[in-house]
Amino acid sequence: MTDRPISRFPVPSLASLPQDIRARIEAVAEKAGFVPNIFLALAHRPDEFRAFFAYHDALMERDSGLSVGEREMIVVATSAANECQYCVVAHGAIVRIRTKNRILADQLATNWRKADITARQRAMLAFALKVSARAQEVDEDDYAALHAHGFSDEDIWDIGAITAFFGLSNRLVNMASIRANEEFFAIGR
Amino acid sequence: MTDRPISRFPVPSLASLPQDIRARIEAVAEKAGFVPNIFLALAHRPDEFRAFFAYHDALMERDSGLSVGEREMIVVATSAANECQYCVVAHGAIVRIRTKNRILADQLATNWRKADITARQRAMLAFALKVSARAQEVDEDDYAALHAHGFSDEDIWDIGAITAFFGLSNRLVNMASIRANEEFFAIGR
Amino acid sequence: MTDRPISRFPVPSLASLPQDIRARIEAVAEKAGFVPNIFLALAHRPDEFRAFFAYHDALMERDSGLSVGEREMIVVATSAANECQYCVVAHGAIVRIRTKNRILADQLATNWRKADITARQRAMLAFALKVSARAQEVDEDDYAALHAHGFSDEDIWDIGAITAFFGLSNRLVNMASIRANEEFFAIGR
Amino acid sequence: MTDRPISRFPVPSLASLPQDIRARIEAVAEKAGFVPNIFLALAHRPDEFRAFFAYHDALMERDSGLSVGEREMIVVATSAANECQYCVVAHGAIVRIRTKNRILADQLATNWRKADITARQRAMLAFALKVSARAQEVDEDDYAALHAHGFSDEDIWDIGAITAFFGLSNRLVNMASIRANEEFFAIGR
Amino acid sequence: MTDRPISRFPVPSLASLPQDIRARIEAVAEKAGFVPNIFLALAHRPDEFRAFFAYHDALMERDSGLSVGEREMIVVATSAANECQYCVVAHGAIVRIRTKNRILADQLATNWRKADITARQRAMLAFALKVSARAQEVDEDDYAALHAHGFSDEDIWDIGAITAFFGLSNRLVNMASIRANEEFFAIGR
Amino acid sequence: MTDRPISRFPVPSLASLPQDIRARIEAVAEKAGFVPNIFLALAHRPDEFRAFFAYHDALMERDSGLSVGEREMIVVATSAANECQYCVVAHGAIVRIRTKNRILADQLATNWRKADITARQRAMLAFALKVSARAQEVDEDDYAALHAHGFSDEDIWDIGAITAFFGLSNRLVNMASIRANEEFFAIGR
Repeated sequence: MTDRPISRFPVPSLASLPQDIRARIEAVAEKAGFVPNIFLALAHRPDEFRAFFAYHDALMERDSGLSVGEREMIVVATSAANECQYCVVAHGAIVRIRTKNRILADQLATNWRKADITARQRAMLAFALKVSARAQEVDEDDYAALHAHGFSDEDIWDIGAITAFFGLSNRLVNMASIRANEEFFAIGR
Repeated sequence: MTDRPISRFPVPSLASLPQDIRARIEAVAEKAGFVPNIFLALAHRPDEFRAFFAYHDALMERDSGLSVGEREMIVVATSAANECQYCVVAHGAIVRIRTKNRILADQLATNWRKADITARQRAMLAFALKVSARAQEVDEDDYAALHAHGFSDEDIWDIGAITAFFGLSNRLVNMASIRANEEFFAIGR
Repeated sequence: MTDRPISRFPVPSLASLPQDIRARIEAVAEKAGFVPNIFLALAHRPDEFRAFFAYHDALMERDSGLSVGEREMIVVATSAANECQYCVVAHGAIVRIRTKNRILADQLATNWRKADITARQRAMLAFALKVSARAQEVDEDDYAALHAHGFSDEDIWDIGAITAFFGLSNRLVNMASIRANEEFFAIGR
Repeated sequence: MTDRPISRFPVPSLASLPQDIRARIEAVAEKAGFVPNIFLALAHRPDEFRAFFAYHDALMERDSGLSVGEREMIVVATSAANECQYCVVAHGAIVRIRTKNRILADQLATNWRKADITARQRAMLAFALKVSARAQEVDEDDYAALHAHGFSDEDIWDIGAITAFFGLSNRLVNMASIRANEEFFAIGR
Repeated sequence: MTDRPISRFPVPSLASLPQDIRARIEAVAEKAGFVPNIFLALAHRPDEFRAFFAYHDALMERDSGLSVGEREMIVVATSAANECQYCVVAHGAIVRIRTKNRILADQLATNWRKADITARQRAMLAFALKVSARAQEVDEDDYAALHAHGFSDEDIWDIGAITAFFGLSNRLVNMASIRANEEFFAIGR
Repeated sequence: MTDRPISRFPVPSLASLPQDIRARIEAVAEKAGFVPNIFLALAHRPDEFRAFFAYHDALMERDSGLSVGEREMIVVATSAANECQYCVVAHGAIVRIRTKNRILADQLATNWRKADITARQRAMLAFALKVSARAQEVDEDDYAALHAHGFSDEDIWDIGAITAFFGLSNRLVNMASIRANEEFFAIGR
């Protein structure tokens, strides 16, 4: 255990928060058994908190040609490229839960190219990493490569938008040194 | 003029959109004299549209130690690094309007280090570009450098969060090949 | 307007210059309506001035399979990659004049891959950018790709040599902080 | 569990191996409870196997100003930069055992700069990462920075040599797609 | 001539060394006519010396589908990429001797892509450079490209392992500033 | 010896060349004892040839605070970074002649940071390499670092302009695959 702060910025008490934000946090705490630090750290800015989680839910909870596990795989692989501890650790735990695979998240976090995934998933992650690092070079060949694996244009939007959204999250977390809760490390092992 | 599409993805008609999104677009069209393409292109996904603009407003319309012009300077400089045409062109126009400077936006878009800005603004942009390209390396020395120019911690959050948010925007625009309206190129020249 | 110097190095008065250099500058001033700063800044070194503009003319005024507009497009795209304000701004103005297109230069300066150009021009710029950033990797596949678009070997020399020459110019300008004249920003808008 | 091969190259049976190599493998299996795949995969080349583990032992089992845990931290952080699954996973397990810290290895594997380590360890890892990525730039300033944290020249050799040796290991593992045993993922959680 | 030290670390006298190391050094001195500095510099750490040269011999003196000259070409090209003076200079001399070609080593050290080598050797070096810089991206396409030139899987192991081993050597040399003997520069010219 | 062409482009016969170019080539052949290939290869474009060598002479033959040997050191170090065989080999020979040092050129070509040069020369080359790779980042701190070593502003222009000019040369040579004469490799050894 550590007494290091969970964020470089002030962390509001739950009691001090607007009702909608507090409700959201209580709901996630109920489900997870603890309050993930990102909620408290971002609550420092209530309007940004609301927009952040609205965006998150719009992408991660919508119907999609990508399974929930695949969406989380994108988060882990791109967050690893951005060297974001919180996102790799927290979403690595979700990958373990969603895919019922104890080792996949750590494989993805180190080298997604050599993880135990399908060719289709490899194409998905290759596109995600390109959007993350060189979106300016995306062209029709990239779309064709994904179509060849059965992804629709809407699926491709999902891959790119999840990558873009967590690229935002990765930068916030690294800027504010938001810590991953210790609980995440052990989940699903 | 061109007949190239404004997005690689379907662009909904204004009439087909949910009322709140339509109202938002009509308001911006009223103010700008035309509908900026980003609104129509993102309306393809209404929930993401709402979250995107809520996030935008939370950052760009809040009270801040950064002037509106400075916030737009961050957008132009980081979007140039990400090679995002729409964001450089549209926010370049806003920089011209907000700063009443005809040449600053083009300077920032090419090489912010040699633009006609203050040392304080140079420090602001150096931090923004670091968050954009290497947020994982941000540390206390970066905070100290900005404090030395009078920026508060809250100002620094603003710089980093604006950078992170437009990094998301840059990736969406490049992924979907969203075109900048021709009107933007001439505004404020 | 600004009183910032046009170069970090001494700028000679027109009257103090050798006759041939003075004549060249007066001719360009007659044509442009103002003296582009690069002429005054480089006149600091008369022999280098003469060689520079002799080289420039040899490449930019020769008969070529590349139109004058295409040659200027190469200058803008590669100078943007080298983050050279003067070259992007001044040759951006020339692109607007030569192509009678108000927006192409700004598109090229931000992301040439998504500019309104032909497939042939895209191949031309891909080669130029490769010569600019990784000339050591140029091989026969690059020539074949350009031949497939109808470029001759001599055209390819032109693309590469223009890129190499403006790479020199970009480095001089950035080293000496040579400013673009304010006139350039508005030309052809 | 998976039936994927542990190496892209032939994996010898234990019975077919020279006696000294077999003894080494049996000893590690006795201690670990399983045979780490790297032993079987490298046994494909007995002479290289012997040299590899002799080098390993010379660095990792010698008396040093670096604790065993610190040496393993270097392995994890540099192997993560080289995206080597086997080394990150196997030595991550050793870090957990040696430091009795359940989360440190995952922190180091994602972003060593923000791990729960001392300033001295941060300097140690900064040097290791420099040797890994840009050894050609190492100079006296790097030595001075480490001396300031109490490292001796011999300690610095250890940091650099461990980095260099595992850089070799990382490249072999990635070249031959050597898999990490599943047992490693759960050790020390 | 210079009086600069051959290593930043202490260099033991020949007389002070363990008998086996001394014998090895005397043998190489007998053959070369001088003691290559790497032997004295690494003798600072006897156990690492033994492992280093055992590894070297296992790779460079084994039977292989690669000629000795080709193996040395790999050393020169990859050591040049790692900017290691000792390795480029010493193994450049060996390339000149082994290939009876006075200019090949210098070509390889500057730009292997444009050296006077066969297409097969070019494929060999392309793989070596990939293992050196981006081993994490090695995949079956790389193996197929080498198979097409007649390389066996064992040959490919040799290419990769030689690259990995000299990557270790390059980092040690640069870390310890080990000088190349002046004799090497003139050998085989 | 080889029968590989000296350039990918047509090489004119001496007899076919304009008188001034022919005279220049005959003069250099008289002095060197052979015709350096760059002269014949660039004579393919007479106007560019004239400008190229006028520029070369303006920089390399002018009075300067840099010795001729130092100017050639800049050429070798920056051409090595650009992986230009012709320039490294030909100007390496000139470094050997000018500095009467048999090994300096090869040191510079591999890793200028560890060459046998003075602190002043190291500062000179650090600036040259910055102009070569990241001229857009040059600022007053770079000038101050050189002033501290006694360089004047005019000397700094020389360093930067030589770097920029040979960056042009490097790109032409790599684009056209211009071969270094075999004679250069042995000169001054």
